[in-house]
Amino acid sequence: MADWLAALDRRAELRAKAGLTRRLHPRTADDAVVDLAGNDYLGLSAHPEVVAAAAKALAEYGLGATGSRLVRGSTAAHHALEDTLAGWLGTDRALVFSSGYLANLGAIRALVRPRTLLVSDAHNHASLIDGCRISGAQTVVTPHADVTAVAAALAAAPGQPAVVVTESVFSVDGDLAPLTELHAAAREHGALLLVDDAHALGVTGPAGAGAVAAAGLAGEPDVVVTATLSKALGGAGGVVAGPAGYVRHLVETARTFIYDTALPPAVAAGVRAAVELAQAGDDRRAELVERAAHAVRRLRAAGLDVSRPDAAVVSVTAPGPEAATAWAAACRDRGVAVGCFRPPSTPDSRSRLRLTVSAGPSRAEFDHALEVIVECAP
Amino acid sequence: MADWLAALDRRAELRAKAGLTRRLHPRTADDAVVDLAGNDYLGLSAHPEVVAAAAKALAEYGLGATGSRLVRGSTAAHHALEDTLAGWLGTDRALVFSSGYLANLGAIRALVRPRTLLVSDAHNHASLIDGCRISGAQTVVTPHADVTAVAAALAAAPGQPAVVVTESVFSVDGDLAPLTELHAAAREHGALLLVDDAHALGVTGPAGAGAVAAAGLAGEPDVVVTATLSKALGGAGGVVAGPAGYVRHLVETARTFIYDTALPPAVAAGVRAAVELAQAGDDRRAELVERAAHAVRRLRAAGLDVSRPDAAVVSVTAPGPEAATAWAAACRDRGVAVGCFRPPSTPDSRSRLRLTVSAGPSRAEFDHALEVIVECAP
Repeated sequence: MADWLAALDRRAELRAKAGLTRRLHPRTADDAVVDLAGNDYLGLSAHPEVVAAAAKALAEYGLGATGSRLVRGSTAAHHALEDTLAGWLGTDRALVFSSGYLANLGAIRALVRPRTLLVSDAHNHASLIDGCRISGAQTVVTPHADVTAVAAALAAAPGQPAVVVTESVFSVDGDLAPLTELHAAAREHGALLLVDDAHALGVTGPAGAGAVAAAGLAGEPDVVVTATLSKALGGAGGVVAGPAGYVRHLVETARTFIYDTALPPAVAAGVRAAVELAQAGDDRRAELVERAAHAVRRLRAAGLDVSRPDAAVVSVTAPGPEAATAWAAACRDRGVAVGCFRPPSTPDSRSRLRLTVSAGPSRAEFDHALEVIVECAP
Repeated sequence: MADWLAALDRRAELRAKAGLTRRLHPRTADDAVVDLAGNDYLGLSAHPEVVAAAAKALAEYGLGATGSRLVRGSTAAHHALEDTLAGWLGTDRALVFSSGYLANLGAIRALVRPRTLLVSDAHNHASLIDGCRISGAQTVVTPHADVTAVAAALAAAPGQPAVVVTESVFSVDGDLAPLTELHAAAREHGALLLVDDAHALGVTGPAGAGAVAAAGLAGEPDVVVTATLSKALGGAGGVVAGPAGYVRHLVETARTFIYDTALPPAVAAGVRAAVELAQAGDDRRAELVERAAHAVRRLRAAGLDVSRPDAAVVSVTAPGPEAATAWAAACRDRGVAVGCFRPPSTPDSRSRLRLTVSAGPSRAEFDHALEVIVECAP
């Protein structure tokens, strides 16, 4: 027993030597940083209508939901949000979880029957990986965005129920999965397709309805969509959307739904206001596309290795983990927040800065932030 | 593929035949129900100081945290809450997660080393069970509250690192685990003790610091405490508290901490106000004890089978799942919300009502609610 903390210390020392120490940097409400690190893509987290809707529900309901959804936690605010989300996403029903992580854990497990095979993209988010793991189902990890490998994995399991599990816009590199082709491969096998649309919801698709809608797959009976409510929608929580019978199955059996306190009603109400703003946000989305393209041009002109963004996530290669940390720290010292992603948070061994393009800062602030990133480059 | 929804329908029919259908019942903000179902033990969720603190942070920060804790999600409100919680719980450090479920998943996995044995109580909450499962560690489930069985499981694994995993106040029956004896058994083996104090925090212990503090185990180097911030504290989220080196390990490695959007800053600020009220809440706790004792007397006098509450959870046996559902529905029709727990949400095959005693309703409302429960009994 006495040595457990010593063992943790040794592991911390190993991480420090590898340049992989992680530290919390608290920010204050008045921090004037230009934020290219957070996921508030549309700048809605502090939008007056979002804040007003949340404040109203806070005054009416109090802070917490006071219980799980099936006990006391279901409020009219939750149901209104779910109806709004289902309409936006074009699915029968939508179910709100208290986090996107818990939504993914619940969504995957609820798709698993005896003998189900899960086919999971190598770049999938931790919550999808953990969802596969906790489901207990046989899981095959296929190379990133490799439809041929997915089809081969399915073909190797004839007659077996299967689910293809993918993000739409991948969180680290910002590239878009080949959703149309994945759906075709899944359907040919009789498999289901689960798409985590977290980084696309509000950012791409018709009225911002996400990458699944953009691919024309909204409401398909063999597609399940998950997403967070904490990125473009500026709030917190997660959602699973799909056929009514599947959502009913989640309500009645999903452990991460049933045994978890509901999202605070004020958050549900604020997010609902954000959905309405996002639906009407074509101007904001056009600005995002323009900013992302400009960022790539500017950073490449400076000789940096930059990903081609399919949505609002731009990945910039760093020479190594310590250089990435120093680069991000130098930017922060000059008032620009950028994401710093190092192993094991990257799907390969590369470290990088992750820039999240947001409509929140002014264009002048955004352009200035790019100059800071260039000037601080190692 | 086509048959997956039909298969879910068949399972729903089987649940319906067994009386195990679960449905969401949304409540409105002005619903006048007397709540003996939620977990707002101290009535703090709508306390003016809690709501005011949350409203202030909402106005200052906006709604969402806009990112994970290690990216943009750490605000001064989170750090202030964590310092306050660590001081209250008597531990080196405390770390806030976006839900209690995610806190438990992260806390357990972070205690697992190669060859670690987990010894888990048979009545443990779903999030603890899933935490054991997702850790991948060998897990032995011991009979409920059976210290001898725990000691035997540890003795059968000499030289193996081990963690004893338990709730303090169990969520369904409200009984208290033998924490002192479990800790002694763990220490004799050199094992760690993880206690989920969700239903005791704010309700029992010195200044409401929970059952671990009440047992004199606060700050012990071989004890880790988890809890929700959504029960007596009236908010949302979860916390893991323990030695500084362990909490640092969580910050640097816990997937459900790192890859999850942070709790909204408004929730963190509101919960911090709730902690201060809970610390000064001896009067509310005395009222809870008196109400719980009175509830047991009244319900037993009516011939009902009632648990002996160690905190504020009272379990009342129902003849079966359909009778439990009908009983709870009849209470709700008369303005009283009670929990209705049926398999598989109960650790045995019994269905019951779960009453959560709260200082929220007036004493007259509380007493009236007991009469309604008696009059609606099957």
